[in-house]
Amino acid sequence: MNNFVYNNPTRIIFGKDTIRELKSQVPEKQPVLMLYGGGSIKRNGVYAQVKRALKSHRVVEFSGIEANPLYETCMKAVADVRRNKVQFILAVGGGSVLDAAKFIAAAACYKGKDPWSILRTHGAELTTALPVGTVLTLPATGSESNGSSVISRAATAEKLHFTADCAFPVFSILDPQTTVSLPRKQVRNGIVDTTVHVMEQYMTYPAAAPLQDRLAESILQTLVEVGPGTLRNPEDYDLRASFMWSATLALNTLIGCGVPQDWSTHMIGHELTAFYGLDHAETLAIVMPGVWTHELKRKEAKLKQYGKRVWDVRTAREAIAKTERFFNALGMPTRFGAYQIDADEAARKVRSRFAERGTVLGEHNNLTPSVVAAILRSRA
Amino acid sequence: MNNFVYNNPTRIIFGKDTIRELKSQVPEKQPVLMLYGGGSIKRNGVYAQVKRALKSHRVVEFSGIEANPLYETCMKAVADVRRNKVQFILAVGGGSVLDAAKFIAAAACYKGKDPWSILRTHGAELTTALPVGTVLTLPATGSESNGSSVISRAATAEKLHFTADCAFPVFSILDPQTTVSLPRKQVRNGIVDTTVHVMEQYMTYPAAAPLQDRLAESILQTLVEVGPGTLRNPEDYDLRASFMWSATLALNTLIGCGVPQDWSTHMIGHELTAFYGLDHAETLAIVMPGVWTHELKRKEAKLKQYGKRVWDVRTAREAIAKTERFFNALGMPTRFGAYQIDADEAARKVRSRFAERGTVLGEHNNLTPSVVAAILRSRA
Repeated sequence: MNNFVYNNPTRIIFGKDTIRELKSQVPEKQPVLMLYGGGSIKRNGVYAQVKRALKSHRVVEFSGIEANPLYETCMKAVADVRRNKVQFILAVGGGSVLDAAKFIAAAACYKGKDPWSILRTHGAELTTALPVGTVLTLPATGSESNGSSVISRAATAEKLHFTADCAFPVFSILDPQTTVSLPRKQVRNGIVDTTVHVMEQYMTYPAAAPLQDRLAESILQTLVEVGPGTLRNPEDYDLRASFMWSATLALNTLIGCGVPQDWSTHMIGHELTAFYGLDHAETLAIVMPGVWTHELKRKEAKLKQYGKRVWDVRTAREAIAKTERFFNALGMPTRFGAYQIDADEAARKVRSRFAERGTVLGEHNNLTPSVVAAILRSRA
Repeated sequence: MNNFVYNNPTRIIFGKDTIRELKSQVPEKQPVLMLYGGGSIKRNGVYAQVKRALKSHRVVEFSGIEANPLYETCMKAVADVRRNKVQFILAVGGGSVLDAAKFIAAAACYKGKDPWSILRTHGAELTTALPVGTVLTLPATGSESNGSSVISRAATAEKLHFTADCAFPVFSILDPQTTVSLPRKQVRNGIVDTTVHVMEQYMTYPAAAPLQDRLAESILQTLVEVGPGTLRNPEDYDLRASFMWSATLALNTLIGCGVPQDWSTHMIGHELTAFYGLDHAETLAIVMPGVWTHELKRKEAKLKQYGKRVWDVRTAREAIAKTERFFNALGMPTRFGAYQIDADEAARKVRSRFAERGTVLGEHNNLTPSVVAAILRSRA
């Protein structure tokens, strides 16, 4: 087992009718920026619940955060934060709104000239941010309980992430009832995203960390158990609650403690979203089986362990096939063909971007830009 | 799944040679109380490592914390805290030292007349305590990552616990190397204690919380996998590290989120320690199989699930038998006979104590004092 530091200070308030807790969780004396996306929180009643809980607070609203939140939009919110002397940011929505809130909170305190530097350095020098609280309405990204954020920049077609201790939300409210009205596609995306979050921290090589392996497998087994059911029966509270809690634990940094990680699938996927506008989870479902197949020998021990414990199959190839079938059964394609995207073109574009940046991926640092291109070509 | 709040702010610093991190983790400007037990930390080199890391700090030492820490001893430390204007408490040792540190930290800030009230009310009104950091040298109690503490009072043969948000350590340093020199008996105790911590949050009834069940089972499976090995080969770093991390996760409040709990075994065990001076884990190993056997029908679904997933057996009775055999194989007795204690006498004493206090236990609130007495009589 490798040395590690585990520190997750986010207070999780989980369950039915918990939005009312905002009243006591959000500091009352200073202006609060309430950040959200489109109109979905108005249609599903979450907006009204939040406003009711905050009726004694001074709330400044900022809406219009996109599905892949844009730097350009966030900087408008930063201007609002400064103009209104906002001291607390409340994000209401899914991972995009939460990620935007973290960046806005950091950019508002940033002393340098160009806040994009926070992303260029992946948060390496970030020590101060406004406090952020969240009301999560879409289980998927784990952003409600970690210090990470992914932001896109329209002007340059870039999608970068940062991570910092000061970016952990101070609290996150998770009421599974708020997710009942989600479109089926977003729930599908959330299940796939959660699965891949677990895999990026698990599917490497044995590292004498049996507990971490089993914790990761627990989340995978739960997703297999409740995923299809919660897609079919959004109204089943317990299924939705288990999915929601799985999504949080998949990326609250716990299962990755002391083990090697491989974020290749995410890094490659981010480029595909930037180039083609695919949903984040759609990119992951295409890329991950390709990375696994290419790295079959190096990942074989873990693929076999996963196959045996989660799917009761024997070989690494069967484990990959089972995973693709699981995604497909959720209605998630795993090939470029489903989107009429030319795999060769995608391979060329991503290779050129990675070559430019000197990006090399994988837990063994062996996925060079040309290896990544080969992986993408295999996903036609 | 039940509603829950999960908030664990303790920073865990885990791994080889991590004691040196004390230098930056302990505030430097104010006096620090360094709390420890007997001389074991001097023999195994931990004392020297701590003093080296804190050579620029003002350290006041307080040693002599007992295996079941006494209120009377803690109050002497509180006097030292006040006399020296201590602002930070560093606990170096096992759960007893950590529990004592939490109580001292709370009692030093206590405004009322009698700090024993903190325990009588189980921490219900506690909101302030000095910050506590820990260096854990004995994996067992989980005290390094929770807000709970158990304190005994010699004068009255009482053993009570308290829990409070303000009692979570701000950091805990876990270096598995510090545990290599532990006596075999203490490691045995730690494995049993950890197992029972998991069980108290798991062995109740199905509550539509499949992820929590699997997380609990992950810890149990890991203990079964590494427990016997780490007893036999204390020098195997990876085995010891997995045991140490299991002990923390067993009682850092995560696996108990949103599920019913049953702390009967602990509550009954505390009385046996108070009356007979048995080690905490020794009491648990006697009591738990008795509680399970008495509650077989009510716990049957979970006993069968546990039996199938952890031991690959079919019936609840086989699951109980497997658990007793696991304890016995670690060298841990599961009957009063092993200690020449009269089960009938123990039953009478505990019944009378519980009747006096009106204690009723169990997730169904059905373990009245006379039921507890029947359970204890069955453990002759």
